[in-house]
Amino acid sequence: MTLKLHCFGESGHSYKVALALNVAGLDWEPVHIDFFRGGSRTPEYLANVNEMGEAPVLVDGDLKLSQSGVILDYLSEKTGRFGGETPEERREVLRWVLWDNHKMSSQAGVTRFLTNFLSPEKRNDDVIAFCQGRMMAALKVLDGHMTERDWIAGRDVTNADFSCCSYLFYDESFGFDRKAYPNIDRWLDRIADLPGWRHPYDLMPRAFPGAA
Amino acid sequence: MTLKLHCFGESGHSYKVALALNVAGLDWEPVHIDFFRGGSRTPEYLANVNEMGEAPVLVDGDLKLSQSGVILDYLSEKTGRFGGETPEERREVLRWVLWDNHKMSSQAGVTRFLTNFLSPEKRNDDVIAFCQGRMMAALKVLDGHMTERDWIAGRDVTNADFSCCSYLFYDESFGFDRKAYPNIDRWLDRIADLPGWRHPYDLMPRAFPGAA
Repeated sequence: MTLKLHCFGESGHSYKVALALNVAGLDWEPVHIDFFRGGSRTPEYLANVNEMGEAPVLVDGDLKLSQSGVILDYLSEKTGRFGGETPEERREVLRWVLWDNHKMSSQAGVTRFLTNFLSPEKRNDDVIAFCQGRMMAALKVLDGHMTERDWIAGRDVTNADFSCCSYLFYDESFGFDRKAYPNIDRWLDRIADLPGWRHPYDLMPRAFPGAA
Repeated sequence: MTLKLHCFGESGHSYKVALALNVAGLDWEPVHIDFFRGGSRTPEYLANVNEMGEAPVLVDGDLKLSQSGVILDYLSEKTGRFGGETPEERREVLRWVLWDNHKMSSQAGVTRFLTNFLSPEKRNDDVIAFCQGRMMAALKVLDGHMTERDWIAGRDVTNADFSCCSYLFYDESFGFDRKAYPNIDRWLDRIADLPGWRHPYDLMPRAFPGAA
């Protein structure tokens, strides 16, 4: 049965799952959420899809799962891949997925939203600088971790990589300069070389297909 | 062997674990981190305790674990408690722990830091208002989820409750008014009635013992 992923192209959190699905070679299709017109906050969406008002949501038959970290964990149970092979690796994967949710993608996602998708009259440069500062602190931790290391946790690509890389593949300017983080830069190239890798906009329908 | 928790009283992320340890009745002791004087960012701490520069860290013999969500998961393996009883419950626990890290404790923790512990000359009211807005959006989701429900996931207290409640037990003013969220208010009373519950400052040494 085809897996369905409620998502939208601009959502890095959705991209984590879309990328894992595609690299695993699973049969899946995107279901577009009209996020920028409130599509994840309609009464129907909150009642029937996700009370948290967020993307992504994976539907596998009768099962409906939200939170990218839960979905990635579920897909690992299904495929036996990307979840870590030992208890230590499994914990290391979860550690970086949690850190990503708290410190990396959360800050990168908000910063990218504030700098690219918020209407100009609501823009506040102090708030942007604050979020960028937190994002850059996270990038520094990740770049340090990737010194002399190919993948975040374990000897191969895992959910930790899918989770942490997500917002870093978007081309819109939001304060992340790949060349300033050489270990991250090489690691992103390594991910982009995986069979099944696609840019987020090639995996999921965009809200603004004409934009940069 | 006594479990050691690197922590400090003002850290809600540490409190999640301290509370789980105490409610489980485990033999543990806190190891104070001098966070406000950079204690979690010294070269020694980054190299030997946690490269993420964060609290808490649990030490169990030779094992050293960071990220509160990983530690809670580990303690559940150890005790057989608080992790959910079925695969569905386990996923539901993880879902709320991830949401908490991304949307709830993260925002509440930052807001409390900015309003209570940042030096006044660095205070920026626009940034505080932005963080409070995000915190209140999360509180609304949680309050809605707790309608006609005693615990966040499953029929009894789990790691989802320990994770999400953490910053909500502090008395310092940071924009969270318990009475504005009646379902959260009742749920916090329920948690405070658990055997072993203690206020964060009664479980972990504070940096500012004289403060309000």
